[in-house]
Amino acid sequence: MSFTTRQHFEIKNVIISAGTHGNEMSGIEAVAQWQNNPSPLHEALPSAHIGLTLANKPAVKARVRYVDEDLNRQFSQAKLNMSVAENAPNEVKIAHDFNAEFGPKGQSKTDFCIDIHNTTSNMGPTLIVLENDEFNQQLARFVKSVMPHSVILVEDYQAFADFGYLCTVATKGVMVEVGPQLQGALRASVYQQTVDMSLAILRFIELYNTQTIPNLGPVQAYRFGLEVAYPTNSQKQKTAMIHPNLDGKDFAPLLPQQPCFIDFTGKDLLWEGNASYPHFIGEAAYDHLNIAFATADKCLF
Amino acid sequence: MSFTTRQHFEIKNVIISAGTHGNEMSGIEAVAQWQNNPSPLHEALPSAHIGLTLANKPAVKARVRYVDEDLNRQFSQAKLNMSVAENAPNEVKIAHDFNAEFGPKGQSKTDFCIDIHNTTSNMGPTLIVLENDEFNQQLARFVKSVMPHSVILVEDYQAFADFGYLCTVATKGVMVEVGPQLQGALRASVYQQTVDMSLAILRFIELYNTQTIPNLGPVQAYRFGLEVAYPTNSQKQKTAMIHPNLDGKDFAPLLPQQPCFIDFTGKDLLWEGNASYPHFIGEAAYDHLNIAFATADKCLF
Repeated sequence: MSFTTRQHFEIKNVIISAGTHGNEMSGIEAVAQWQNNPSPLHEALPSAHIGLTLANKPAVKARVRYVDEDLNRQFSQAKLNMSVAENAPNEVKIAHDFNAEFGPKGQSKTDFCIDIHNTTSNMGPTLIVLENDEFNQQLARFVKSVMPHSVILVEDYQAFADFGYLCTVATKGVMVEVGPQLQGALRASVYQQTVDMSLAILRFIELYNTQTIPNLGPVQAYRFGLEVAYPTNSQKQKTAMIHPNLDGKDFAPLLPQQPCFIDFTGKDLLWEGNASYPHFIGEAAYDHLNIAFATADKCLF
Repeated sequence: MSFTTRQHFEIKNVIISAGTHGNEMSGIEAVAQWQNNPSPLHEALPSAHIGLTLANKPAVKARVRYVDEDLNRQFSQAKLNMSVAENAPNEVKIAHDFNAEFGPKGQSKTDFCIDIHNTTSNMGPTLIVLENDEFNQQLARFVKSVMPHSVILVEDYQAFADFGYLCTVATKGVMVEVGPQLQGALRASVYQQTVDMSLAILRFIELYNTQTIPNLGPVQAYRFGLEVAYPTNSQKQKTAMIHPNLDGKDFAPLLPQQPCFIDFTGKDLLWEGNASYPHFIGEAAYDHLNIAFATADKCLF
């Protein structure tokens, strides 16, 4: 399947998934509202069937990110090819069931997946795209045109199919990632941005299906770089915190020799990397993984 | 025991507890740092023995607020008097063990307890006192004098001994409550305010023990009022979110007819109560209890 050939790939089956992480409430609530009243979805995208799903119901019920393992890392082809033991982790089973229902990955009955997330970081309304192709470029430009304050985050360091993300079960997929929002709670502004971005994506798909996409030029975006660890001692305990000057400054430039951590004695630790645009700063779900933030470069997309 | 008689009650045994809620990281980290280097504690309060404890170690290990039930509601005399079944909730067992080690409540071997918490709400560095007596007044005034931006929150709607809070195991006790901080993560400013307030309390105890408390007049404080629930439908589902105008505005005045919630159709819901000072606004741990915020009145203390 290629979007750059002349043949037009009409998007007939769309799923909107939320609750991939069970404590990310804006998507969970948006899906609940749309289940009661799906008309905004059909108005945005009349030319496709739109399914709604809560991906990790046990985690949603327990208001936890996951029960055993992160569901949004279970969808690599290698993991999906493995057989599922009876005592397999909850999320391994869910991934296989999800793949059977909405995939199978690589030959999917689902043309497009919007997987809705939120973050405790101050990332604003962020569209995460996983492919640097014309379709994703046009999608990103359209979202940016109707939500000028949105952020386009490009994660294209590997092929779409090689990611373990849930949305890769579909032929095409993106993640909506809005913050800051607490785990297990809802913030009105984040909820509204989540709804707005999801509907903007559906509206773009309608334009795509009807081959009426406006001609939009490149927009400023951020390309994912690498993950930065917290400083630790020999016992693997953190020895420093995110610096107050960095805290909450997602997608602002971090320059060499600017403070990025502060240790427990109050000493500043300076950034020794290249000029960068940190994001996922202090994301609570990454704290136990010892990830402090991710870097990005600015790019046109 | 009375602090208003001429007889002076010297505070010989102090405990600083953290991890009463296992995902409130600033106290947990402060206790870890003081275990490595207790000299700041002894410099602040040389005239007493100071113990350090993590109250709910299983919850700290799992990075959850609690395993079965909220530990900070288990210390009423009625609950402590009940026998503990073998299959009792984790926190019931911990409360009894804690009471045996540091209490027993009412005839305690511990003269004073500082129980350190943090909140996801934007409450700043808050000292929660549970008694309207001269000791607590002097303590609050001293903390306010050395931390002018701190907040004094008075919860005195019942007798000290009648609270189920962990700190009531000691003869006297207070809670340090600093926010905003995410569950399971550390914010440098919150950590530092937590340390500063804890040390200020110890310094006050030293002044008290040596009968050298300066003469400090009343300070502005807030007296806890009541808890306000989220609006719900007949299926007990939330129908609205904290209004963006209220979100993050802890201890700012909320006046009648100002918006306090916004429903999922975007309609503002107006405050119909008296003029009040909301706090614990949108606290994530209270979301599943359907508590939106607490009210308070301004008072002199």
